[in-house]
Amino acid sequence: MTSTQALPSVNNTFGKTVKPISVPKRHLFGPGPSNANPLVLEALALQPVGHLDPYYIDLMAEVQDLLRYSWQTTNRLTLPMSGTGSAAMEATLANIVEPGDTVLVGIKGYFGNRLFDMAGRYKANVQTIKTDWGKAFSLEQIEKALKEHNPSVFALVHAETSTGVCQPMEGIGELCRKYNCLLILDTVTSLGGVPLFIDEWKVDLAYSCSQKGLSCPPGLGPFTMNERAENKLKSRASQVPNWYLDVSLLNKYWGSDRVYHHTAPVNMNFGMREALRLLLDEGLENSWKRHKDNAEALWDGLENLGLQLHVERRLRLPTLTTVRIPNGIDGKAFATHLLNNHGIEIGGGLGDLGGKVWRIGLMGYNSKIENVELLLDIFKSELPKF
Amino acid sequence: MTSTQALPSVNNTFGKTVKPISVPKRHLFGPGPSNANPLVLEALALQPVGHLDPYYIDLMAEVQDLLRYSWQTTNRLTLPMSGTGSAAMEATLANIVEPGDTVLVGIKGYFGNRLFDMAGRYKANVQTIKTDWGKAFSLEQIEKALKEHNPSVFALVHAETSTGVCQPMEGIGELCRKYNCLLILDTVTSLGGVPLFIDEWKVDLAYSCSQKGLSCPPGLGPFTMNERAENKLKSRASQVPNWYLDVSLLNKYWGSDRVYHHTAPVNMNFGMREALRLLLDEGLENSWKRHKDNAEALWDGLENLGLQLHVERRLRLPTLTTVRIPNGIDGKAFATHLLNNHGIEIGGGLGDLGGKVWRIGLMGYNSKIENVELLLDIFKSELPKF
Repeated sequence: MTSTQALPSVNNTFGKTVKPISVPKRHLFGPGPSNANPLVLEALALQPVGHLDPYYIDLMAEVQDLLRYSWQTTNRLTLPMSGTGSAAMEATLANIVEPGDTVLVGIKGYFGNRLFDMAGRYKANVQTIKTDWGKAFSLEQIEKALKEHNPSVFALVHAETSTGVCQPMEGIGELCRKYNCLLILDTVTSLGGVPLFIDEWKVDLAYSCSQKGLSCPPGLGPFTMNERAENKLKSRASQVPNWYLDVSLLNKYWGSDRVYHHTAPVNMNFGMREALRLLLDEGLENSWKRHKDNAEALWDGLENLGLQLHVERRLRLPTLTTVRIPNGIDGKAFATHLLNNHGIEIGGGLGDLGGKVWRIGLMGYNSKIENVELLLDIFKSELPKF
Repeated sequence: MTSTQALPSVNNTFGKTVKPISVPKRHLFGPGPSNANPLVLEALALQPVGHLDPYYIDLMAEVQDLLRYSWQTTNRLTLPMSGTGSAAMEATLANIVEPGDTVLVGIKGYFGNRLFDMAGRYKANVQTIKTDWGKAFSLEQIEKALKEHNPSVFALVHAETSTGVCQPMEGIGELCRKYNCLLILDTVTSLGGVPLFIDEWKVDLAYSCSQKGLSCPPGLGPFTMNERAENKLKSRASQVPNWYLDVSLLNKYWGSDRVYHHTAPVNMNFGMREALRLLLDEGLENSWKRHKDNAEALWDGLENLGLQLHVERRLRLPTLTTVRIPNGIDGKAFATHLLNNHGIEIGGGLGDLGGKVWRIGLMGYNSKIENVELLLDIFKSELPKF
């Protein structure tokens, strides 16, 4: 030993024989992760390079540019957080909320509740507007709440993964400017699959994930903030109370200084780079149309089977569909049956919709007409058995 | 479109043509990431499964058991944080530090400074003991500081990646018990490569990374805490001020409840599982001996070339060696030459050692005698050109 310290002997009872990994094949038609594009998986399996390697520095810039394209933003501070979508969600709040700031959270599903929880941890005065799980907010509701609470931040979910609702965005950014508040938008289940215009819609901060519309495994959390948000960050009286997600530090690594912050998850960024490249190759409009076409085929097919969809058609997310579980059917038993006997994952309900809906995702690589047909066939053949 | 909202047209100037990924081959002999074991990379490239899939739940338990073996601990709360080693570092502080708690940080390199920065963000009363970058603390120094500051937490780096020093651990845990304080240990550059006994050494919380001794790419941060630390967490007067890293929430997902917290980085955990399995197959003692033997061969070879090592032999880390840059040599130019012309990455100095040392890592999969020979040959042939 290099040290003169006496060492205990290794306790091998902690270990046991473990066989090489063997992962079952799944069709991931739940709320995410979705199946990854095989080219993305190939990129993940490349030998890493150093996080300050000139090659990697160039790749970081590519990832940033491609994210800007995907989000339709020119924001300089656009980067993938080195954690999942929830880390990127937390990063939006951690960086711009100071103790005592009023944060208005729109709650119309599970992820609104999460924003509420997080904002409280950053000592915000958290106010809420709520609507039913399965509905969207109207401009009138939002304006009333902005007037009443005068928040410095309004946090809203664009694509609510728990309900399958796509929040119409027209006019919301303008209202936030009018009432002088920053707009945070959760685009976890919309990026890549649903029309999204960060700059046009006057969204100040947004976040997303890697494992849905982008066809990459989970592990990175795309994040973007504009100059209005950056000004709020710069004017903080105190440090960001979260070192790992502090954009003022991250900016020194992702910006021109290239100062080491943390060792980047290099391989996940290889995967993200390929996922975004494939989205660029397809083109955003084509990807959006593909998601819409396949979702409509799914909706029509499910309705033809006599099933009821939870969300009215004009608000439905093309990426995630909530299907009401018919009376008398054990929704969990059906989902377990599909997983165990057909390798098909669909999601159950969360929170208020627990036990009431199934959640069917067709996102990114998985949004294909063959998958729509597979799902409709399986519902047709298996549901009558329950 | 599913919504009636008028949409802007897509701005394609954000995008540009991007070619398929092509990553240069590197020998990663810097401070990490190291090259990954090819079997780990194969596991990374498997199609994901859902984060609540029964298969994945079993895999999580395997990862936990294998981490316990690698750290030699029975701690129930042992899991990989869904971020890099720095996230796991922050998790140790975020969970057990409450505003006003006195935290004593041992600073003898760059990562001690990082602990200092983080602890301040959690509003601790941060006190420090310091020693030169290249030295370790003595028990006397530590006891004096514990007496003087009466901290509730003492945070110490076992393997300082910035200096190449391995802190002797004998007696430190006992001192922390005697002075009623929790011991946090940074094992980022020791896990898998250097003898490490969390339970025997009475370490209360520890963290590490995936990309060094474990031969996996960066992206996960192993974390462990014992019952003493858990009691401190349970007795908090306020919520953990960090949602993503809150162990009381994570425990509901990793514990028997399996309550959804965030979408796990499934593929990184596939890789981690294989990395840990390979370590178990080799056996901890064999891995430690391999690192030690190869490090000693490197040290002898470098000294035979007339180079001076920065750390006295008894304190040297087998995973990371700091080599003094000879007078008159531009250390950065030499490292750049090795990278650009030989595909070999070595690290430069950080902080106090910036410009003064090279950092050579032989960790995990990279700790092989062929790599020692490659390094010695390249130093022998290339250094005289500078």
